[in-house]
Amino acid sequence: MNNFVFYSPTEFVFGKNTESRTGELIRKYDAYKVMIVYGGGSVVRSGLLQRVEAALQAEGVEYIELGGIQPNPTDPKVYEGIDLARRERVDFMLAVGGGSVIDTAKAIAAGVVYDGDFWDFYAGKAKVQKALKVGVVLTIPAAGSEGSGNTVITKVDGLQKLSLRAPEVLRPVFAVMNPELTYTLPPYQTACGIADMMVHIMERYFTNTQGVEISDRLCEGTLTAIIKEAYKVKQNPEDYDTRANIMWCGTIAHNGTCGVGCEEDWASHFLEHEVSALYGVTHGAGLAVIVPAWMTFMATHNPKKIAQFAHRVFAVPESDDLEEMALTGVSRLKHFFRYIGLPVTFGELGIEHPDIDLLVKKLHEHKGELVGNYVKLNKEYSKEIFELACK
Amino acid sequence: MNNFVFYSPTEFVFGKNTESRTGELIRKYDAYKVMIVYGGGSVVRSGLLQRVEAALQAEGVEYIELGGIQPNPTDPKVYEGIDLARRERVDFMLAVGGGSVIDTAKAIAAGVVYDGDFWDFYAGKAKVQKALKVGVVLTIPAAGSEGSGNTVITKVDGLQKLSLRAPEVLRPVFAVMNPELTYTLPPYQTACGIADMMVHIMERYFTNTQGVEISDRLCEGTLTAIIKEAYKVKQNPEDYDTRANIMWCGTIAHNGTCGVGCEEDWASHFLEHEVSALYGVTHGAGLAVIVPAWMTFMATHNPKKIAQFAHRVFAVPESDDLEEMALTGVSRLKHFFRYIGLPVTFGELGIEHPDIDLLVKKLHEHKGELVGNYVKLNKEYSKEIFELACK
Repeated sequence: MNNFVFYSPTEFVFGKNTESRTGELIRKYDAYKVMIVYGGGSVVRSGLLQRVEAALQAEGVEYIELGGIQPNPTDPKVYEGIDLARRERVDFMLAVGGGSVIDTAKAIAAGVVYDGDFWDFYAGKAKVQKALKVGVVLTIPAAGSEGSGNTVITKVDGLQKLSLRAPEVLRPVFAVMNPELTYTLPPYQTACGIADMMVHIMERYFTNTQGVEISDRLCEGTLTAIIKEAYKVKQNPEDYDTRANIMWCGTIAHNGTCGVGCEEDWASHFLEHEVSALYGVTHGAGLAVIVPAWMTFMATHNPKKIAQFAHRVFAVPESDDLEEMALTGVSRLKHFFRYIGLPVTFGELGIEHPDIDLLVKKLHEHKGELVGNYVKLNKEYSKEIFELACK
Repeated sequence: MNNFVFYSPTEFVFGKNTESRTGELIRKYDAYKVMIVYGGGSVVRSGLLQRVEAALQAEGVEYIELGGIQPNPTDPKVYEGIDLARRERVDFMLAVGGGSVIDTAKAIAAGVVYDGDFWDFYAGKAKVQKALKVGVVLTIPAAGSEGSGNTVITKVDGLQKLSLRAPEVLRPVFAVMNPELTYTLPPYQTACGIADMMVHIMERYFTNTQGVEISDRLCEGTLTAIIKEAYKVKQNPEDYDTRANIMWCGTIAHNGTCGVGCEEDWASHFLEHEVSALYGVTHGAGLAVIVPAWMTFMATHNPKKIAQFAHRVFAVPESDDLEEMALTGVSRLKHFFRYIGLPVTFGELGIEHPDIDLLVKKLHEHKGELVGNYVKLNKEYSKEIFELACK
């Protein structure tokens, strides 16, 4: 087991009607003026935005709004938010939405108190030293951004989708999580969220670090719970307990609970980021295509942990032939993804002829010669995985 | 699933040589003077105390010391600490030790800034409004006190062992956790710690709350890891990864990771507290006697979760006869406890003729007519469980 720091200071307030506590939670931070960031019309139509506003008004908290955040959020909206926040002297960011909204709120939080261009942080030219505090009312369990210090933004110019990690300053101080808010998520979006949270765990679980029994068990247990609840949510999307289990799994998948003491991989995420930057696909759907391909590649190159996953999560019988165990596990994972309505090939994702050479070129431009850790991917390996994702 | 708040703001700094970071961690809190609290001679003999002092000196942090904390810590040492802390203007408590040392440090932290008698907090006569900050260098994985806002102190007069919960102010701000520090723990103490952390999980896991799949899986996964590593540590007490897994399990067993959204039980703890208050036994050993008896009682009164535990943690085959499944699970748990060197009856604990009437009387005096939640125990039930613990 490697040395690690586990630090998850976000206050997660979980359950029915918890959005009514948003004002009281913000009050703790002596906010002068809050910027409520949200996405499309659904938070307006559902009445959620109004309920959150009422909760703020009840505590005498002033606020302004920034709506219209899109999936795969881009830099223009961040610049707009930074300008608005400065003009209005905003000192607290409240994200009401899913990963895209939260990531945009984090980008604004860092940019508003920085003299330079906020993109410097994502491009690795500057480190985030300070930021406004960020709170969350979560509506889509998927990205885990409500409990992480990470944010991903796409620069429209050049289609660069880059991530930033600054947990000391960008991790939300609280996250309000009411599973009822997720009842109306369309099945496809629910499924994409499920793939996203599963892969957050798998990026940590597929490791060469030895002696990480507790980490393995937490990862496997959380994956097992997600899969069981995914079958149930397809049958009954308005079952509270099912939605609650999925929502909490999305958080612990990414707040550090899973994967303590492990060298993590993250190659699948980097491969997928190129796909969604180029083709604008939903992150979770892209992962459902890339990850089985990555695992198929690993079945021949480093099958050990893939075989363990197959056995402990998908009940593939143990055998000496680890490659065969691993491949059977991949097959079951693909079956599961398909069952919940996700694509598992580029074709099913709607990309008949992906420009693999361009994807490989961009990937290694952004991430260097070697990507990931479980097996370090050179250009040839990345290409092979993109090709496996066509099958 | 019930509504819940998950809030675990302690910074856990885990791994080899991490005690060298103690000074730097305290520096973040602008401490003027630190009180280092510790137990017997082992932290002195091992050189740990010296290394911690060196880490404080390197950061220019002033400190005084309070040693001699005993297992099942008592109130006189708390009063001594409060007097000393006031005299020396201490503003930060550093516990170097296990649960007893940490719990004493917390009691002093609350008492030193309170005008009345610190025991008011434990007796439920006053609420802790503020306290000095507490940091930890952990040497015994067991109590989980490094990540909890709980403390248990015994009042010598009347042998009252009472617990206090005040996470807002008493939860440690950091915990340094170096598994190497636990290499020299005697097998019996290691085993007692293992029982303690297992029961912290079981008190949460044995619940009637429905729809808690993720909580169940995290509990079962952590229990499975502990049991596997417990066999290994008996063979090789100086294996780093084994000690590391056990140490981290002790923390997540009690920081809220396990048991989210569940109504918890805690009857076994309350029963055991009476045993250790009256007979001075080690808490973990007392639990190894009480918990199988409690589970045996539950096998007839409410077998569902006991049977699930038997199946998922101890691989008892599933059957329609839940009581039989549950009893087989209890038998395997007892076998496991005995294997790692723990007693599983009062007799094995060295108490040939426990005064059960007195234990029952004290229990219900302290905890009211009904104790626990999984099945609420009246006096008759408590008596039955104490009697089962004789067999």
